[in-house]
Amino acid sequence: MNYLKASKAELQKELEIQRKRFDDYKAMGLSYNMTRGKPDSAQLALSDEMLDPKYIGDGKAGETNCKNYGGIDGIDPMKKLFAELMNTNPENIIVGNNSSLNMMYDLLMKFMIFGTPAVKKPWCKSEKLKFICPVPGYDRHFLVTESLGFDLISVPILADGPDMDMIEKLVAEDEYIKGMWSVPKYSNPTGVVYSDEVVDRLGRMYTKAEDFTIFWDDAYSVHFFGDEPAKQKSLMKACEEGGHPDRCYTFMSTSKMTFPGDGVAAMGSSLANIEVVKKWINVQSIGPDKMNQLRHANFLKDYEHVIEHMRKHAKLLKPKFDVFLETFEEEMGDTGIFTWSKPEGGYFISVDTLPGLAKKTVAKCNECGVAFTPAGSTYPYKIDPQDRNIRIAPSFPPYSQLKDAATILCICVKICTLEQLLGI
Amino acid sequence: MNYLKASKAELQKELEIQRKRFDDYKAMGLSYNMTRGKPDSAQLALSDEMLDPKYIGDGKAGETNCKNYGGIDGIDPMKKLFAELMNTNPENIIVGNNSSLNMMYDLLMKFMIFGTPAVKKPWCKSEKLKFICPVPGYDRHFLVTESLGFDLISVPILADGPDMDMIEKLVAEDEYIKGMWSVPKYSNPTGVVYSDEVVDRLGRMYTKAEDFTIFWDDAYSVHFFGDEPAKQKSLMKACEEGGHPDRCYTFMSTSKMTFPGDGVAAMGSSLANIEVVKKWINVQSIGPDKMNQLRHANFLKDYEHVIEHMRKHAKLLKPKFDVFLETFEEEMGDTGIFTWSKPEGGYFISVDTLPGLAKKTVAKCNECGVAFTPAGSTYPYKIDPQDRNIRIAPSFPPYSQLKDAATILCICVKICTLEQLLGI
Repeated sequence: MNYLKASKAELQKELEIQRKRFDDYKAMGLSYNMTRGKPDSAQLALSDEMLDPKYIGDGKAGETNCKNYGGIDGIDPMKKLFAELMNTNPENIIVGNNSSLNMMYDLLMKFMIFGTPAVKKPWCKSEKLKFICPVPGYDRHFLVTESLGFDLISVPILADGPDMDMIEKLVAEDEYIKGMWSVPKYSNPTGVVYSDEVVDRLGRMYTKAEDFTIFWDDAYSVHFFGDEPAKQKSLMKACEEGGHPDRCYTFMSTSKMTFPGDGVAAMGSSLANIEVVKKWINVQSIGPDKMNQLRHANFLKDYEHVIEHMRKHAKLLKPKFDVFLETFEEEMGDTGIFTWSKPEGGYFISVDTLPGLAKKTVAKCNECGVAFTPAGSTYPYKIDPQDRNIRIAPSFPPYSQLKDAATILCICVKICTLEQLLGI
Repeated sequence: MNYLKASKAELQKELEIQRKRFDDYKAMGLSYNMTRGKPDSAQLALSDEMLDPKYIGDGKAGETNCKNYGGIDGIDPMKKLFAELMNTNPENIIVGNNSSLNMMYDLLMKFMIFGTPAVKKPWCKSEKLKFICPVPGYDRHFLVTESLGFDLISVPILADGPDMDMIEKLVAEDEYIKGMWSVPKYSNPTGVVYSDEVVDRLGRMYTKAEDFTIFWDDAYSVHFFGDEPAKQKSLMKACEEGGHPDRCYTFMSTSKMTFPGDGVAAMGSSLANIEVVKKWINVQSIGPDKMNQLRHANFLKDYEHVIEHMRKHAKLLKPKFDVFLETFEEEMGDTGIFTWSKPEGGYFISVDTLPGLAKKTVAKCNECGVAFTPAGSTYPYKIDPQDRNIRIAPSFPPYSQLKDAATILCICVKICTLEQLLGI
C-alpha cells in the first residue's frame, strides 16, 4: 500500500494492524543492539591464526629488529602492503599504530600548531576555521573538527559522492574552509562510492585557502560484498594531475580486516608532505609498534591475500545486510514513505524516513527493545536538519536477531508515519 | 697523577704516553657505538616468552574482548598494574599504546589547543611559552617543547634533584613558565634520584602560572641495579598535599621492561585531570591496542613480578656499567680532570670533562672508532654552555666492546685536557 495515496480509512486500518504487530513484538521483551559498526565474533575468528608466533618469527623485518626502538614510519613490508592497497609507492606511506582516526586527529593537531607542510601557517591562529562534512557521514570525523573549534559545513552526499557543484563554490569563495572529510568508498553510512569524476574534481578544484586539505578516510577500501572491491581513482593521483599534489592525505587501517582494536593504520600522501610529517612524528614518538606490524605483514602478505581474506568477511557480512534489505523490500517496497541504501560494501545501511520522523522512529524501536544509532548522529553537531536519517549497523548482532530488528524498524516507521499522516 | 698539579714536563710526558695509546687503539680499526640507550638482545630475550599465545588466551580481559573496538583508557588489569607501579589507584590511570613520549607530546598538544583541564586557556594563545628543563637531561623532552615554540630554561640537576631554590624563584615570578620536564628516578643521564624533599617542594611551590604542569617521566622507576628500586615519594601525593592536586602527570612505560618498540605506556594524574583527558582521547581514537596490553598484563602480572623481571635486566646491565665505572676509577681516579656519575639504575652514565672539552673529546673518540652521543645533546638546543657533559649508554653494545670503549674515552679525555693545559 502506498501510504501517500491511501484514504484516511485505509491509513487508520493500517495503523491498527501495525500497532497490533508492535504490541506483539514488545511483548517478546527483546533487547537488541544495532548501533555498533563493528565486526562480530565470527569475523574476529578469521584472524585468530595471526596470533600464532610463526607470524612473528625471530621478530626481524629485514635488518630491523621489531622488538627494539627505531623506525619512525613503519617497517618495510607493511609500507609495501599499504602502498599496494593505496595504489601508491612505499615512500609515500607512514605506518602507525592501531588507529587511523588517531592519525587523522594527530595530523589536524599538527596543522593547528604548525600549519600544513606547504603553507606553514598555524590553523590555530586563523580567525575562523571551517570544514566540509559530507552528510550523512561519520560522526567521529565531525566530532574531531567540532572539538577543535571548526564550523562544520554540511554538503549532501549524492549517488556518486558529495555535491561537487556545492563544494567547488564553497571552497572557491571562503578562505576559512580549510579542509574536508571523506569516506570515499562504501561511505559511512550511505555506502556511496565516489565516482572518478568526483575524485578528479576534488583534485583539480580551485580553493581560496591555499592550505585546503582533504582527509580521505579510505576505511572500507577493500570491504566489499561482491566479487571484488569497487575500482576507484586514487585521490593522490587526481591531486597530482590537478596541480595540487599536497592537497590530500589518504588513511587506511586493518581494523576491519584483522582485529578492530589492534590493527595497523597508515597514511599516504605526497613525498613533500610525508617528509614533513615524518619530521613531526620523529619528535612525537620513538616509533610505532613494529611487532604488530610484522604480525600483520606476515599474515596479510599482499594485496591478493588481503582480498582473499576480505572475501571471508564478506561471506559473513553480506547475509546480515541481506536480512535488512529483503525485509525493507517486503515491508516498505510500495509504501512511498521510506528509502534505503543498497550498499555493496562497508558497514552500514542508511535509511530515510519522511521528514521529522527519524528521532521518533528510533525512540519507538527502543520502546520495543531494539537500539539503533541515535537519529542525527550522522550529521554535524548530531543535528539532522530534516530529522530523516537512521544508520543501521547489521554487523555485530547475531544473525538470529536481525529479522526481528528489521521488522520492528519497519513497523515503527509505519506507525510514526501513519500517526503523522493522520495528525495523531 | 693529578693533572692540575703536575709540572709542564710531566704533562708533556703524559701526553706522549696517551698519544701512543691512542695510536695503538686507532690502529685496531674499531667501530663501536655507545650512543643508544636501548636494551641489548639478551635483555630483549628476557621477554620472548611473552609472545607465547598463552599470554593472550581467549583475548578477553574480564568482559572486554580485547580484539574488538572499545575501551578508551586501557584494560583493567593493565590499569591495576600501572597503579601499583605509580603508587596510585587504577581510576587515576590511562593506559595507552607503546610510547610514553607520545602520550606526553599529545598532552602538550592538547594544552596548546584546549589549555589544561583546570584552567582551559589554550597555551597557543599565550604571548610567550617557557618550560623548565633540568640539565643535563633528556634530549627528546627538550626537543618536544622546543618544537612547540617554548623557550627552554635550563636548571641544573644537583645531587638530590633539580636546583629547587632556582626553580621556586623562576616559577613564582614568570607567568610564562608553563611547566617542567622531569625524569625523577635514575634520571637521564645523571642517574640522580630526586629526594622526597624535592618532590614535596615541587608539589607545594607557588607558581605564577596557574596552569603550571609538571611532566613527570618516571621512565626508570623500577630500572634498578641493586636489591630493589630506590624509594621515592609520589609526586601526585605531594601535589595533593601541597594543595595543587592537578599540577602533575606521571608517565611510565614497559618499554625497557619488555620490548622497547612494542611495550605499553601509561599516564597517571588527579581524577579531575583524568576525566578531562579521557574526554579528549575519546575524540582522538577508538582506543589503544588492548591485545598488547593483555599480553603485558598476563606476562608482568603485578608489582612483585615486575621487580623479579627487572632483576634479570639488572643482572645483564650492571656488569656493563661496571666496566665503565671501574675503568674510570683506574684511569681517571686521581687526575682531577674528570667526574662521572655512579648510577644505581637507569640507562646512562653522565661524565664531565673540564670546561670546553666535551665536543673535542667526543670527536677524538670518533676518530678512534668509538661513537658517543654528540656532546651537548643533554642540553636544550643541544648546547652545553660549558661544553663539559658526555652521555654514555653502555646497555646496547656487546660486553666485549666496553673495556676498549671506556679506555679510549679516558685516553681521549686525557689527550684533550693535556693539550689544553699545555696550550697546544
